[in-house]
Amino acid sequence: MFKNNMTELLKIEFPIIQAPMAGGVTTSSLVAEVSNSGGLGMIGAGYMTPDQIRDEIREIKQLTSKPFGINLFVPNEFTCTEKEIITANEHLQPMYKQLSSSMVNLNIPSPNQVFDTFNEQIQVVIDEKVPVCSFTFGVPSIEIIARLKHHNLILMGTATTVEEAIEIERLGMDLVVAQGSEAGGHRGNFMAEDENSLVGLMSLIPQVVDHVSIPVIAAGGIMDGRGLMAALCLGAKGVQMGTAFLTCIESGAHHVHKEAILHAKEDQLVLTKAFSGKSARGIHNKFISDMKNHQDSIPNFPIQNTLTQPIRKAASAQNNPEYMSLWSGQTPRLAKNQTVEMLMKEIILEAKYIKDIIADK
Amino acid sequence: MFKNNMTELLKIEFPIIQAPMAGGVTTSSLVAEVSNSGGLGMIGAGYMTPDQIRDEIREIKQLTSKPFGINLFVPNEFTCTEKEIITANEHLQPMYKQLSSSMVNLNIPSPNQVFDTFNEQIQVVIDEKVPVCSFTFGVPSIEIIARLKHHNLILMGTATTVEEAIEIERLGMDLVVAQGSEAGGHRGNFMAEDENSLVGLMSLIPQVVDHVSIPVIAAGGIMDGRGLMAALCLGAKGVQMGTAFLTCIESGAHHVHKEAILHAKEDQLVLTKAFSGKSARGIHNKFISDMKNHQDSIPNFPIQNTLTQPIRKAASAQNNPEYMSLWSGQTPRLAKNQTVEMLMKEIILEAKYIKDIIADK
Repeated sequence: MFKNNMTELLKIEFPIIQAPMAGGVTTSSLVAEVSNSGGLGMIGAGYMTPDQIRDEIREIKQLTSKPFGINLFVPNEFTCTEKEIITANEHLQPMYKQLSSSMVNLNIPSPNQVFDTFNEQIQVVIDEKVPVCSFTFGVPSIEIIARLKHHNLILMGTATTVEEAIEIERLGMDLVVAQGSEAGGHRGNFMAEDENSLVGLMSLIPQVVDHVSIPVIAAGGIMDGRGLMAALCLGAKGVQMGTAFLTCIESGAHHVHKEAILHAKEDQLVLTKAFSGKSARGIHNKFISDMKNHQDSIPNFPIQNTLTQPIRKAASAQNNPEYMSLWSGQTPRLAKNQTVEMLMKEIILEAKYIKDIIADK
Repeated sequence: MFKNNMTELLKIEFPIIQAPMAGGVTTSSLVAEVSNSGGLGMIGAGYMTPDQIRDEIREIKQLTSKPFGINLFVPNEFTCTEKEIITANEHLQPMYKQLSSSMVNLNIPSPNQVFDTFNEQIQVVIDEKVPVCSFTFGVPSIEIIARLKHHNLILMGTATTVEEAIEIERLGMDLVVAQGSEAGGHRGNFMAEDENSLVGLMSLIPQVVDHVSIPVIAAGGIMDGRGLMAALCLGAKGVQMGTAFLTCIESGAHHVHKEAILHAKEDQLVLTKAFSGKSARGIHNKFISDMKNHQDSIPNFPIQNTLTQPIRKAASAQNNPEYMSLWSGQTPRLAKNQTVEMLMKEIILEAKYIKDIIADK
């Protein structure tokens, strides 16, 4: 019942993609287990070096013979004066104090370095023959798309509006992930302004489906068979699920992060630029509320992300959720701490049960 | 296939409620046509006088023998100094100028007057034997609930979070409308803060369904059979649709408002307090952008609503969309200008078609 052009293209059994959460969540065992369970495991490689990427790909290939994918951040131009960086760093001093930490990271990469890293990441993906590559924060150049297509990679873009989805199709990518406002972690908008890109999946999916002919994947707040079936009814060909996999046993997320999600409620998930300079959804905590007064002086991604890195690291080492980025979608009440295999089985069983009810069987 | 405890309770054929949009949209012919087509028509009576309500109920009864409902705004305490009102009114002067209008409405009701009107509205609803009454902006007192239940009214509350839904059930109401962030018009949050109450339906419905036992109605961005089927998969027992009915031929919405929705895109729908003092979703226009600088000095509902009334009236008279409140949900691309009967038939046909596909028939 789950076969369609999306599962055929990706050569998977169930139309379920594990969202490529960056920052250490997508361990090789998480990715491999998702693929072994019939979904598509994805490496969240946005923050990884080319060497780390190569190592993880090779590890995953030891653990599964099934297809898996990788996600890269498309670099954007960014500028910032020395003075702005100093000001932004000053605003972080109270947090350093709270954590009794004095490490400071002013080692901000230049736009050129970021673009170079991206090109090296692409090369590793090609060299290691990863079957699927998705992109967030924008679309790669037509040269890169042509190079990847030449090597037969299946390409996925991330869109938050109809216009962005149309652009992804126009550039020749194979699938589009439509990210609803429910989604946890970073927003993927690259044409729409932040405030105009928060469209709920109930609205986003049918409007995107009506305007592109490539398969649409629904992402944001989907946690179980109910969400999968709802997405299919709306016209999506599959779902991408993040938070549901983040709290799984195989995920590399910090245990404090997992616990925070397992105890969170839907009205505690807020959008903030405070951690990275880019809008992202996570559980409200002290860092977010302390940064409220400095919202207008937060430098762009990846500058703020670099500046706050020591704070997040120190907080993690101290098991202190108040200064960690606790990314989560808007459905934390459905999160469970279980194996990937159990989660996948539950989703499919529930989806089949709903199908039978709808079919009046 | 659409029979369930929600359709039984409301004595309707299809699990579709027409959202009670206030401000002249829900003409007697709109309400009656929805009920005649097998859904539940609803009077948006929030801004209506008790006499207007009585007249409309009687008109509707001439047009249909089927059940219909009515929605009332639950009054909240509000205070504002003379000085704050003068400041707020000063901020509106440039708009008056743009519209060459000089009318000013400083005729702000007292909280007592608002509560008295609410009680009179309730009395009319009882006297005229309206079968269904829903509430927005809060929950009525247990005395009022007891009085309405004594007269066998079916009661519906509006919730934007799990906590609000639990409260509605606890107070003895019969159904809960779960309003997702996709919804057009006013937000219905009454316990959650504005910024914490914007949960997308894909997240909201399953979480609410897991925490209450009364039937849950999904509201926000639903426009067609795809949305209806998705809502049912998520565990809702029915849907409430506003924008889809607003652009119908029978709706009393201004033709400029209808046209604006028929040409809008999902990334033009913004949240604003500028028109009424309460957060609401509508199409971005000049009034909203002009008021951006005064966001912190907008008085509470219903004060700002009273102050902006002459502007909205003048704009309507001049067919000027830039100063009207163009409420709409996040799915304007699916809006059509057709009869209620055609819309209802399309929804049901599409839902049945989706059912057959899911059932692999």
